[in-house]
Amino acid sequence: MNAPSADQLSLVLANTQTALNLVWTLIAAFLVMFMQAGFALLESGLTRAKNVAHTMGMNFLVYAVGALGYWAVGFALQMGGTPAPASLGADPRAVSEISVTALGQTWGVFGSHGFFFDQPTPAIAALFVFQMVFMDTALTVPTGAMAERWRFAAFCAFSLLMSMFIYPVYANWVWGGGWLSQLGKNMGLGHGHVDFAGSSVVHMTGGITALIGAKLLGPRHGKYTPGGEPVGIPGHSVVLTVLGTFVLAFGWFGFNAGSTLSAMDTRLAVVALNTLLASAAGAVTATLYVWRRFGQPDVTWMCNGMLAGMVAITAPCAFVSTHAALLIGAIAGVLVVLAALFIEGTLKIDDPVGASAVHLANGTWGVVALGLFADGTYGDGTNGVTGTVRGALHGDTGQLWAQLIGIAANLLYVGGCSALGLWLVDRVFNNRVALHAEIRGLDLPEMGIEGYSAEYRGLSPSRAADGE
Amino acid sequence: MNAPSADQLSLVLANTQTALNLVWTLIAAFLVMFMQAGFALLESGLTRAKNVAHTMGMNFLVYAVGALGYWAVGFALQMGGTPAPASLGADPRAVSEISVTALGQTWGVFGSHGFFFDQPTPAIAALFVFQMVFMDTALTVPTGAMAERWRFAAFCAFSLLMSMFIYPVYANWVWGGGWLSQLGKNMGLGHGHVDFAGSSVVHMTGGITALIGAKLLGPRHGKYTPGGEPVGIPGHSVVLTVLGTFVLAFGWFGFNAGSTLSAMDTRLAVVALNTLLASAAGAVTATLYVWRRFGQPDVTWMCNGMLAGMVAITAPCAFVSTHAALLIGAIAGVLVVLAALFIEGTLKIDDPVGASAVHLANGTWGVVALGLFADGTYGDGTNGVTGTVRGALHGDTGQLWAQLIGIAANLLYVGGCSALGLWLVDRVFNNRVALHAEIRGLDLPEMGIEGYSAEYRGLSPSRAADGE
Amino acid sequence: MNAPSADQLSLVLANTQTALNLVWTLIAAFLVMFMQAGFALLESGLTRAKNVAHTMGMNFLVYAVGALGYWAVGFALQMGGTPAPASLGADPRAVSEISVTALGQTWGVFGSHGFFFDQPTPAIAALFVFQMVFMDTALTVPTGAMAERWRFAAFCAFSLLMSMFIYPVYANWVWGGGWLSQLGKNMGLGHGHVDFAGSSVVHMTGGITALIGAKLLGPRHGKYTPGGEPVGIPGHSVVLTVLGTFVLAFGWFGFNAGSTLSAMDTRLAVVALNTLLASAAGAVTATLYVWRRFGQPDVTWMCNGMLAGMVAITAPCAFVSTHAALLIGAIAGVLVVLAALFIEGTLKIDDPVGASAVHLANGTWGVVALGLFADGTYGDGTNGVTGTVRGALHGDTGQLWAQLIGIAANLLYVGGCSALGLWLVDRVFNNRVALHAEIRGLDLPEMGIEGYSAEYRGLSPSRAADGE
Repeated sequence: MNAPSADQLSLVLANTQTALNLVWTLIAAFLVMFMQAGFALLESGLTRAKNVAHTMGMNFLVYAVGALGYWAVGFALQMGGTPAPASLGADPRAVSEISVTALGQTWGVFGSHGFFFDQPTPAIAALFVFQMVFMDTALTVPTGAMAERWRFAAFCAFSLLMSMFIYPVYANWVWGGGWLSQLGKNMGLGHGHVDFAGSSVVHMTGGITALIGAKLLGPRHGKYTPGGEPVGIPGHSVVLTVLGTFVLAFGWFGFNAGSTLSAMDTRLAVVALNTLLASAAGAVTATLYVWRRFGQPDVTWMCNGMLAGMVAITAPCAFVSTHAALLIGAIAGVLVVLAALFIEGTLKIDDPVGASAVHLANGTWGVVALGLFADGTYGDGTNGVTGTVRGALHGDTGQLWAQLIGIAANLLYVGGCSALGLWLVDRVFNNRVALHAEIRGLDLPEMGIEGYSAEYRGLSPSRAADGE
Repeated sequence: MNAPSADQLSLVLANTQTALNLVWTLIAAFLVMFMQAGFALLESGLTRAKNVAHTMGMNFLVYAVGALGYWAVGFALQMGGTPAPASLGADPRAVSEISVTALGQTWGVFGSHGFFFDQPTPAIAALFVFQMVFMDTALTVPTGAMAERWRFAAFCAFSLLMSMFIYPVYANWVWGGGWLSQLGKNMGLGHGHVDFAGSSVVHMTGGITALIGAKLLGPRHGKYTPGGEPVGIPGHSVVLTVLGTFVLAFGWFGFNAGSTLSAMDTRLAVVALNTLLASAAGAVTATLYVWRRFGQPDVTWMCNGMLAGMVAITAPCAFVSTHAALLIGAIAGVLVVLAALFIEGTLKIDDPVGASAVHLANGTWGVVALGLFADGTYGDGTNGVTGTVRGALHGDTGQLWAQLIGIAANLLYVGGCSALGLWLVDRVFNNRVALHAEIRGLDLPEMGIEGYSAEYRGLSPSRAADGE
Repeated sequence: MNAPSADQLSLVLANTQTALNLVWTLIAAFLVMFMQAGFALLESGLTRAKNVAHTMGMNFLVYAVGALGYWAVGFALQMGGTPAPASLGADPRAVSEISVTALGQTWGVFGSHGFFFDQPTPAIAALFVFQMVFMDTALTVPTGAMAERWRFAAFCAFSLLMSMFIYPVYANWVWGGGWLSQLGKNMGLGHGHVDFAGSSVVHMTGGITALIGAKLLGPRHGKYTPGGEPVGIPGHSVVLTVLGTFVLAFGWFGFNAGSTLSAMDTRLAVVALNTLLASAAGAVTATLYVWRRFGQPDVTWMCNGMLAGMVAITAPCAFVSTHAALLIGAIAGVLVVLAALFIEGTLKIDDPVGASAVHLANGTWGVVALGLFADGTYGDGTNGVTGTVRGALHGDTGQLWAQLIGIAANLLYVGGCSALGLWLVDRVFNNRVALHAEIRGLDLPEMGIEGYSAEYRGLSPSRAADGE
């Protein structure tokens, strides 16, 4: 056997790297997929036992409905205008992006290739799976804010719309080559709107929809006194809440570190560390703030503090120093408490699990934080602009502006579409369940099954000792 | 230092690929191992609280008992006649397969090397771990169908038998070089019986044993009226059911995509996508079908629909197009409902969690689906037959026949052995618990502990407020 | 384009290996992080419902508090004196180790570089994340032994101390280049104290602290009769206990196999196999022993048996044969029962979840087992001593002595510091809650929230049927 040539070796080596990148991206995607279980547990723990089959049911079916909607339309709108990253291997798809011309430049609006797509190559298959589970994360956020009163049929219809049209278009603007990612080129706005793993694309999108949905649905029966004072409605299981948060923190490593879409980009280790430290800082500052303000370290606030820290670090995780990551998380832990109290007390919007405070407020904070703290250690070639990403505190005010434009676009586009979508769905299905069903609990009226059976609820020590 | 030679580089590169393949295979195996938790949760959620320690206990111990039985005997019978795949590295084991000669050919029946094995190399260690957790998946299926009335000692004994003798022999026929995998060679039956990740090897094996076990045990007390009408016995926790399903869906990515046993085989990305889409299609069609038929979208059917989709795509996942995967999953979602109703209503077999409908009916469907929809895009060299695998709809009717022969062999061999094994175990231990224990709940009589303590069951708002 | 030179190819290949090693190490770290959820579930399941928010809260916050303490001080003390392993890539940190000279040699005591560290490279970031989650595993063990009566503020303060000072110093001695790892050099004590994945560093450290903490806190109200007889206080949920054990068994694959810190070290496959088999053996022998001794196969003992097997195999997993792994696990499964009964009945120490029996007794057994069964198939270059590691049964009695010295050092240093730390914390915060809070349940008095809400606890079949 002849010795292999350098070119042959080079090719085999490139294939090995591609395989490694695919494996890394897919394992990260599996972790992100598992976050669906985390949301289901978190939201169920923070709401009442009488609605638990409904809450679990929404969080379960959203995964499946979202996958089908994304397969049919969403993926094409989001990624149909740009090739898969080279790290994942060859992508022979035709791509095309619908665009408009303005300010002397062509701006991408949405992709137009790959509807109901079939016969994927490894690169596209991995990209689809990865992007799909991110989309589903955004999709499951509103189920928390709208829990305990959203009609199941309306939820299904709206989730399908969101997976097909609302999420993918904004995601195209940031990750699919669309106009927000182009703001850096010839416009002097840093590298355009940069969001490493989705503080805006995923979390703000989920969060603004959650806030609007909760507002449109109105508060739960009994949430406010006739005088407008909020009444605490405790969730039913701290076990589920904490377990859900751990599952989310576990999956979030895939969410953030996996967003390199490449194992060869060893910055992923720094991403993992920043994610861990921001999550810890958020949990600790939320605990301390609540402890001092309310006298006790409520466990559910600890959990929301950790989630807030992770949402906030999601955009900047690859671009900032360890100290900045800790600061970002620490601020998030306080911000989530303030935001939740503001939404409940001032806006009078009833968000049973604090989804808006976690995802909208801290998603926004994360996007801004990148525009402040990005320190120029990462980002060569991001969105066609050479050089590394720097925030305002490191010399590039344009980057901060690009971040703010991305925030405005999210609130306007996603907020507007979600409001419209929810209104449409309401016309067809009614968004809100009947009052008697809400008082009784949604499980039987909406889902046809009690989340906790009569046998379980009826167990008592004496009966258990005697047999039935 | 001299520059390395091309041969040296080539060797280091090969070692790197082997390391990558081992890591991929092991991580996939860890995910599959975690599916044990999914089954425990699913089955416990779908059964009653008074038996929960028993149901959890079976699902827990089956993992450990199965591991020991497989170590002592099963692995040798399954994989003792064939070397580990080259992707995992050198395998210096001696291998030998007991075989019979018929139709002018030698047919493998079971391996005969590696009992109580020791001193594994990396390749064999990884192969053992991977095959062991697959075996344990099959082993845990019957615990669902036989739940709430199977004596724990009998369960232990039968599970040991199944891990040692029943599963491994059939697995040898398909994956260990045995006769079903040889049907393609000189026989014109496609590539022989092909089952990428175990629709027949794992799921039909578990499912036929589950069905026979449930039949032999007889229905639970109160399951049928004196007139033979089935009575609904609700499970006790939708939370556990949904969480278990999510854990299974998470682990299933390892189950299917990991079955390449090689990260260098980038088809794994397509496998992951097909698995995801089939699972989603199954959940949605089950939901819609149940919604239309019974008026409400029962959450437990959603879960069984997703599981059915995953069982069905398990055999064909690497060989079919995206559209075929969606169709396979969509059919599975309806099939699981029809099969469950048939088993309960017509066969009068009481399978509390629907394990037979999920694993037997849809395992069969998955094996057939490969024989129909395999489209010739994958499979060079499968079982010594060159070229890609094609189903009947893509020109190779022989492949469909090989699939059907594999189904018949599973039903006859596994079904027969399981019936015999259960009969033997019944003679020694009695399979069924005493009626008074069943009525009271199995936890104390069988396991010596209540699954939910008296303190937990006795908590009430007033008592909690007052102290004990 | 010119063909790449051999040196260029060699460099790219080395980078690919580094990327693969980083990915393996990080995925393993994510699995270990998820073990926090396992401990939370296990400990909550084994304790009472009235304290569940407190138990979950401790297991949750310990992760965050530990991360911050480790970031500020712990990592520097542990790893500040030694470069990251070459497998993870270049480590340009300055390192320095505080050391003492004795017996004609310089002995490392703790690292002194990297406090409040920032700007990590990929190698250090991955190492930090990996070591941090190991530290947090040790940190969460005492919360089980001290459950149901530890004041939350005291728990927070002590956990911070432990993450900053207690764990890291001992870890430095074994894994950071400190004196225990140097015992082999010029001293003839094998390869020095060897602990592959932490039977001593993690589990003995957690276990001795747990035992001392439980002793200092005193038994729970009602645990012992006035005559000193222990009274059984059942945990509240077998579901949580079994689920927690499965999560731990899942994560343990990362714990042990990931401790290669290199995917290129394919011994990781053997480690995974040994871990699996030892865990199975421990579960089965614990089940059989308890079944025979007490007449029934209590599920919680099955779980502790599996955990014991995993703790015991953690030190020797890379160095022993399959048969030795099975034997180590089998002994662990019986030892955990005997140790728990001894601690409860003879020492009169109330450890609600058996943490001391699992982690201290079996951590010790695991360290000894390495000193007996290491068979010379692995370990070239461990701690600067060439050749493979051999235990006393394979010809190196010095290795067994090094193991025993490591055990003594752990008990003395960690035990002493933990006793001192707990005493200090007691002076400032009081370790023990008030009696009335303990009787009532800690959730409201300590955490400000009931773990299971009044609505959940108040559900009954009749009320659910009628609405509230």
